[in-house]
Amino acid sequence: MDKYSELIESIDNYIYKNFTAVDEYQKKVYESMTYSLFSGGKRVRPILGILTYKALSGSDDYEEILPFAVAVELIHTYSLIHDDLPAMDDDDIRRGKPTNHRVYSEAIAILAGDGLLNMSAEVLSKEIETYDDLAKVKKAIKAMKYIFTASGVHDLIGGQVIDIEYNDDMNYDICEIMYKLKTAALIRASVVSAGIIAGASEEEIASLEEFANCVGIAYQIEDDILDEELDQKKEKNTMLKFKTKEELLSRIEDLTIRANNELDSLEYDTTELKEFAELLMNRGK
Amino acid sequence: MDKYSELIESIDNYIYKNFTAVDEYQKKVYESMTYSLFSGGKRVRPILGILTYKALSGSDDYEEILPFAVAVELIHTYSLIHDDLPAMDDDDIRRGKPTNHRVYSEAIAILAGDGLLNMSAEVLSKEIETYDDLAKVKKAIKAMKYIFTASGVHDLIGGQVIDIEYNDDMNYDICEIMYKLKTAALIRASVVSAGIIAGASEEEIASLEEFANCVGIAYQIEDDILDEELDQKKEKNTMLKFKTKEELLSRIEDLTIRANNELDSLEYDTTELKEFAELLMNRGK
Repeated sequence: MDKYSELIESIDNYIYKNFTAVDEYQKKVYESMTYSLFSGGKRVRPILGILTYKALSGSDDYEEILPFAVAVELIHTYSLIHDDLPAMDDDDIRRGKPTNHRVYSEAIAILAGDGLLNMSAEVLSKEIETYDDLAKVKKAIKAMKYIFTASGVHDLIGGQVIDIEYNDDMNYDICEIMYKLKTAALIRASVVSAGIIAGASEEEIASLEEFANCVGIAYQIEDDILDEELDQKKEKNTMLKFKTKEELLSRIEDLTIRANNELDSLEYDTTELKEFAELLMNRGK
Repeated sequence: MDKYSELIESIDNYIYKNFTAVDEYQKKVYESMTYSLFSGGKRVRPILGILTYKALSGSDDYEEILPFAVAVELIHTYSLIHDDLPAMDDDDIRRGKPTNHRVYSEAIAILAGDGLLNMSAEVLSKEIETYDDLAKVKKAIKAMKYIFTASGVHDLIGGQVIDIEYNDDMNYDICEIMYKLKTAALIRASVVSAGIIAGASEEEIASLEEFANCVGIAYQIEDDILDEELDQKKEKNTMLKFKTKEELLSRIEDLTIRANNELDSLEYDTTELKEFAELLMNRGK
């Protein structure tokens, strides 16, 4: 991922900007929020947002998309902290480190998650407040609405509800819906919000949505396969319960083709975006 | 509170509008969200927002402020659900009913809280997306930023952090800071966002902030005194640990005078707002 180190640095710097001037009372919760924000996340979602923006705007200056890309990363991080809690997946380790609540207590982990979700709305409203052009403001509000719909009960949170509620009655189709909500939703939020800010048409947005859904589902299947190989997976709801590894690898291949087709349908140079998406969908290779 | 039943009906109807078209997977979390939204909350924050808006705009039509008033109520409700969790205050009863996690499980209660906070951002971005006038959009974004700053780590969430972190080392001054963050922050969010939407000047906003802080702190002290009398209070961080009831009643009197003075400094008819605020600050009488 060395190729993306400049992007990652910009993303990290933008995140850091929001953690200044903290007083005594908030130190611990800020520490807990930054612990999870800077513990090995690959910044997949913000990088996808930036590369989508660069492709569609034709510009190398991606400053405009950073607040949106970072907002999605804040939401992603909060969802991981809450998903790991004892009442949810009860995970002790994430990315090779103790989970947030193991380090900071359950109470602080819940509040740190709340703080990150809240901060995503703060970051976006602070940014949009500085705009003075109605067309620009309207695109930004539309992108913000898209992001918070994707992170809401019908998408991201709904996916976690399925994960909690379905056990013995889980099947392949519900599992696919779960992947679409739990994993693809925020990938879609990154990609589509970037498309909106870059001025994409409704038709182009539909292609970006389909592209992002394919990437998101393939990325999650790939994750499951890698976890299984590392033998780190506890008894969890994954497609490996219903299909063989070979069947799933062929599903990833289909999704990769569909994702590429959607990008090819766009009249932009999507080389960089395609390359990064393929990397995500085929990490095991 | 019969006098406010029309306002409460408008608020409740606006809340309901956001809970339609739910599919199978989300039913339980929607049920959990609406359980806490409709279990005896007095709609104090949205009513304060509406009355502030009516006073400053001079209009009886308060439709414009409803999304902001409701956003604050959604945030307030999520914070109660999360505060009641076993890892936090571990409360079994709220407003005479079982707390959310006692009815729906801890996992669903965490997700319902997340869903409500997320929904507040959805409600606001959906509303603002419909605006076509730059000045109106800019006021709305400013109000939104104010709300999410008040609900963030420096205010609302910070107040809960103090409640969790301070026990034997709690004192009167830190307790007052906690009340300002935990209780006054969202009252300030309601009142000030309404002022911003009604077009208040910076000076007027400063008066509204001071008014709301006084109301918020007095309201919390009143709450502690009433809880103590009902003998329902577990060992919690309240000012009654450090002052007598008489001292606190006299503090409420001071805060009431200061709140009224702030309203009197405004060149608007604030009779209705003052009457409601006095009701909140002196519920025991």
